Amino acid sequence: MCNTMAEHNTNMRLKLPVMCIVLEVILIILFGAFVEYHPDAHARGWHQYDVNNKTSNPDYENEFYYRYPSFQDVHVMIFIGFGFLMTFLQRYGFSSVGFNFLIASFSLQWATLMQGFLHGMHDSKIEVGVESMINADFCTGSVLISFGAVLGKTSPVQLLVMAIFEVTLFAINEFILLSVFYAKDAGGSMTIHTFGAYFGLMVARVLYRENLEKSKSRSTSVYHSDLFAMIGTIYLWIFWPSFNSAITAHGDDQHRTALNTYYSLAACTLATYAFSALVNHEGKLDMVHIQNAALAGGVAVGTAGEMMLTPFGSMIVGFLAGTISVLGYKYLSPVLESKLKIQDTCGVHNLHGMPGVLGAVVGILTSVAASKEVYGNGLGDVFEKIQNGRDSSTQAAMQAASLGVTLGMALLGGLIVGLILKLPIYGAPPDTLCYEDAIYWEVSVLSLEKILYAKLHVSYMADVI
Amino acid sequence: MCNTMAEHNTNMRLKLPVMCIVLEVILIILFGAFVEYHPDAHARGWHQYDVNNKTSNPDYENEFYYRYPSFQDVHVMIFIGFGFLMTFLQRYGFSSVGFNFLIASFSLQWATLMQGFLHGMHDSKIEVGVESMINADFCTGSVLISFGAVLGKTSPVQLLVMAIFEVTLFAINEFILLSVFYAKDAGGSMTIHTFGAYFGLMVARVLYRENLEKSKSRSTSVYHSDLFAMIGTIYLWIFWPSFNSAITAHGDDQHRTALNTYYSLAACTLATYAFSALVNHEGKLDMVHIQNAALAGGVAVGTAGEMMLTPFGSMIVGFLAGTISVLGYKYLSPVLESKLKIQDTCGVHNLHGMPGVLGAVVGILTSVAASKEVYGNGLGDVFEKIQNGRDSSTQAAMQAASLGVTLGMALLGGLIVGLILKLPIYGAPPDTLCYEDAIYWEVSVLSLEKILYAKLHVSYMADVI
Amino acid sequence: MCNTMAEHNTNMRLKLPVMCIVLEVILIILFGAFVEYHPDAHARGWHQYDVNNKTSNPDYENEFYYRYPSFQDVHVMIFIGFGFLMTFLQRYGFSSVGFNFLIASFSLQWATLMQGFLHGMHDSKIEVGVESMINADFCTGSVLISFGAVLGKTSPVQLLVMAIFEVTLFAINEFILLSVFYAKDAGGSMTIHTFGAYFGLMVARVLYRENLEKSKSRSTSVYHSDLFAMIGTIYLWIFWPSFNSAITAHGDDQHRTALNTYYSLAACTLATYAFSALVNHEGKLDMVHIQNAALAGGVAVGTAGEMMLTPFGSMIVGFLAGTISVLGYKYLSPVLESKLKIQDTCGVHNLHGMPGVLGAVVGILTSVAASKEVYGNGLGDVFEKIQNGRDSSTQAAMQAASLGVTLGMALLGGLIVGLILKLPIYGAPPDTLCYEDAIYWEVSVLSLEKILYAKLHVSYMADVI
Repeated sequence: MCNTMAEHNTNMRLKLPVMCIVLEVILIILFGAFVEYHPDAHARGWHQYDVNNKTSNPDYENEFYYRYPSFQDVHVMIFIGFGFLMTFLQRYGFSSVGFNFLIASFSLQWATLMQGFLHGMHDSKIEVGVESMINADFCTGSVLISFGAVLGKTSPVQLLVMAIFEVTLFAINEFILLSVFYAKDAGGSMTIHTFGAYFGLMVARVLYRENLEKSKSRSTSVYHSDLFAMIGTIYLWIFWPSFNSAITAHGDDQHRTALNTYYSLAACTLATYAFSALVNHEGKLDMVHIQNAALAGGVAVGTAGEMMLTPFGSMIVGFLAGTISVLGYKYLSPVLESKLKIQDTCGVHNLHGMPGVLGAVVGILTSVAASKEVYGNGLGDVFEKIQNGRDSSTQAAMQAASLGVTLGMALLGGLIVGLILKLPIYGAPPDTLCYEDAIYWEVSVLSLEKILYAKLHVSYMADVI
Repeated sequence: MCNTMAEHNTNMRLKLPVMCIVLEVILIILFGAFVEYHPDAHARGWHQYDVNNKTSNPDYENEFYYRYPSFQDVHVMIFIGFGFLMTFLQRYGFSSVGFNFLIASFSLQWATLMQGFLHGMHDSKIEVGVESMINADFCTGSVLISFGAVLGKTSPVQLLVMAIFEVTLFAINEFILLSVFYAKDAGGSMTIHTFGAYFGLMVARVLYRENLEKSKSRSTSVYHSDLFAMIGTIYLWIFWPSFNSAITAHGDDQHRTALNTYYSLAACTLATYAFSALVNHEGKLDMVHIQNAALAGGVAVGTAGEMMLTPFGSMIVGFLAGTISVLGYKYLSPVLESKLKIQDTCGVHNLHGMPGVLGAVVGILTSVAASKEVYGNGLGDVFEKIQNGRDSSTQAAMQAASLGVTLGMALLGGLIVGLILKLPIYGAPPDTLCYEDAIYWEVSVLSLEKILYAKLHVSYMADVI
Repeated sequence: MCNTMAEHNTNMRLKLPVMCIVLEVILIILFGAFVEYHPDAHARGWHQYDVNNKTSNPDYENEFYYRYPSFQDVHVMIFIGFGFLMTFLQRYGFSSVGFNFLIASFSLQWATLMQGFLHGMHDSKIEVGVESMINADFCTGSVLISFGAVLGKTSPVQLLVMAIFEVTLFAINEFILLSVFYAKDAGGSMTIHTFGAYFGLMVARVLYRENLEKSKSRSTSVYHSDLFAMIGTIYLWIFWPSFNSAITAHGDDQHRTALNTYYSLAACTLATYAFSALVNHEGKLDMVHIQNAALAGGVAVGTAGEMMLTPFGSMIVGFLAGTISVLGYKYLSPVLESKLKIQDTCGVHNLHGMPGVLGAVVGILTSVAASKEVYGNGLGDVFEKIQNGRDSSTQAAMQAASLGVTLGMALLGGLIVGLILKLPIYGAPPDTLCYEDAIYWEVSVLSLEKILYAKLHVSYMADVI
């Protein structure tokens, strides 16, 4: 299929505009029909109180103040964090940040509708507010994880098609987990990371390119591209406590989740440095590990972060996550490519896949231990169902079922969507031009002669060194 | 005038220190005479309550907690957002970030005084607090927009002189709009964007350089400079919801403004990608569009963002803004330069000018539709005057008058200030050395020979590729 | 000692993993034994209230909401701010960001324990919450300041050893200042900046390298490395108001501290530009000054920022700080190196040392002026001891004693720790390979021939220019 002319017509002049405009028009129509402001964001809604009871709805109780700072941190992670993390490739910086920007902007709108239809309808209207913004950004994060698996080998139109389906499946999976099983997963170890990773890996499997080594020269990093990527890494690392705590219950729950994530990440970072040096025969650190594995600690407490995991429990989880992540990059990724034919550009299996499953398992174990004794009157904030009589082992079973459903949905969904994306109509790059910005972007190119032999201002070359 | 020696004496050794020191001394004296802490920031003021009524002034009602997170987001936009957005030029990164830093640091102090004198006096003192900090940053934003129009063609002293006048005119214009007309413009479509853009364009017109093509080789971007610029773009995009909502009323108003801006920007981004590909004959995306036009959606809901614009209304506005912005870059900017002799370095007409006017028009239309029915008891928070009996069409007329006054003030002010800036005393760069850091900054320069022929460590060259 | 083989065995394959794993295991054990959630973060603790008095512990009074946004700003400063500020070196970007990341991740865990043992024990448990996170980040900041003094000349193992001792001494010094002297130092002019700077300078003195000029070619910046460093600078500058106000009392105190810092930094920036141009014979600005001296205004109001310093007082302090900092870089640093044999890579003496001492002095002077008249009922929030009867001149004397103790602890501690770090067992780089990433990191290296003569894709070279 890769040899057809259609596949190699990478000109986006009609495909991309038609796609973007049609999608946005549909979004606007659906928003017009179904979306309205949450009462906390509605002029009439927020001020609609009994005149006799003037103390109701004081401004500081508006949901905005509880969650907007966390939302902004999450927003930075989605657009700066994910976007720059993927700029490590030497010739794919525009696409990494730019396609991330495009598909995230689409996904957050589409997610608002899909999540709204499935679990946010009030009187046949979807109510939007700071919580829906956070949830939409979360769903978008899942799409960006999958993007990492197919980075450099896909066209922007292909990515938008992937996003349409993935957001939809994400919302269905999330609905099953949260509203059928009543599983807990506030930071999305399962719904976001496990789902996004295995969905993306399956898509990458279907889109396997036998001759990808033709683009090998561009598949690595250069010095400054690695520094740009560190901007993404550090922002993801810093704000992960906000990510995991963004939609947990008010008060102690948000507070505790942030703490657990903070400790998990710190421990994970030490594990990452330890194992990165250990697996290198010269004892040198590898930027790939630092950029990615150091974040696994945030993924791995995505489910249990709001629970009474204890700080030292969080540190153990983070340490394990960093360890398996580095070992995955070193020993598992090559096998995935050679044996399973999965070309996982960013190693999302190591950063989101395995740590996501670990996070789900930690969630199961921590749920088993939930009790009125440990949580006191705060039990209901974390485990509503246990508070209302569900057995803690039943809760744990539901957590386990959630992991299974997520893996199933991700793999099956990824298979089907991968086949759809394999159609030679999206303008995907040829094998010889993967990981290359110039195929979809105007890139200023100066000829080699100009650089080496023409009248060079000395000042130009100062950039070089 | 450009041929005089005076113009080409770009040595800043006396000019810049004298300018900075004199300005700061004046600022300190005026602050000493007129500025004191707002009661919410004053030890005695905040704790001055009736001992019998201890519940007054609980800490969580301090204005700080309502607005400081938004302030910090705005602060990031001013210093990182604007600063890095302008680093797209290949040899002007130091100046873009560095002069942005300098003139913003001056402007926020000067704006505190000018805005204070005009509409912040209490007992002949200017009270400063988190609101004054936000307002000062807003005024600074306007100066930075104008900076974008003259980027690369001005000396730091010239920019400081521009800032002195522009801040003053900004404060006067703002006073007329908000305190005479009682127009609404919380996110500054008119006061900040329209004013800053047309003021800057007029200055650029007066400072027109016939022989600017002599610096053409440096007026474009290079690969990594475009990536640095994306740091600015993405931060502006992420935090624009905070910008527009930073000084709206507490509660539903801040909440709704953030939502509207979020949706407007998302829709704008899809329009930007669509039209960027459409106007390129190879269907390739242009970094100039992505870096700038994708932000027009934030500008265009600067006035109406706090109103009941509805999410889908916001999306329509954002989509339109992105569209006109890309088309402006493609078709209008060349005309502005060739016919009107306006050399608009950053294209502020496309990012701030037209979208600002669009935002003003959307504000007029949304004001007409304002009613007790739609806003309920929240009407007064948005339209104080309508709540107190003003007709909504009168409000709309005042909004329209505000746009007119803003355009007049900006164009006339820009003309006069432009003429002042044309004096050959500020050390502006010659036509051959525009867009060049080395003229005002110590830049490490290695000779070409050193690089190509001398004993090169291989490791040096790793940077190159 | 530098000539022994041991010193030059820079292979980290065993040293670094052993160090990281042993430290993390110790941390986990100690956390397991001593650390538990603060009641505000504890499910049972937060919900433990009298059933009859349901209004107690409303969610908005959870400490999390008062401090978490500030914490996140501080967190950005520690990991992005310090990390990228140090990327100015041309070949040391990986290490600057990467070692910063490593030692900060360790230090914040270790600081939680040390600060907890000394002044955070409740029923023989250390309670962790948002305040302990901020305090741990503060202590970490001190270690990173010292890192700046020895940047490029140390191995990661050496840095971890330094961190172990420095965190411990920091906690002891902090305990003496805050819990014995009851000195005020919320933003850490003394505890963080003075301590970190003089500790680091003393370590640098002990580790003096006679032949460091062998690495001179790498000890300077290049164009893009200076831009990366500006990311660090600007973030530190933006968020410094949050840093200084992060742990001051609720309400007016946090509000006022942010204001004072904001004005101090703005004035400092104008002083920096003025003196940077003035001390250069061509009047050109120096990136070293802009990157560093512009931040001195934040350091210098670290003690007095929460006091009634007044905005114009803050501006005077900021202006002085910027001035002495630039002059320090220009005239004092060369003397420190040639006469005192202190090779201060980042010039921490100019950014943290002198401005820290200035901050302490400003704190003394402002304490003398403290009175019930000025502070009203807010006196106790700032000066608990004066409220309870201590004389304001006694308070000032305690502030002065604190500066003395801090300097003594830093210099003596730095001396001892420097001697420990001089042992030839940590794999420090040889004199010829300082400021070089390739010694501890996998760096992609392409041979010169490949670049210049081999089959070059033109697109490769686009990066160059």
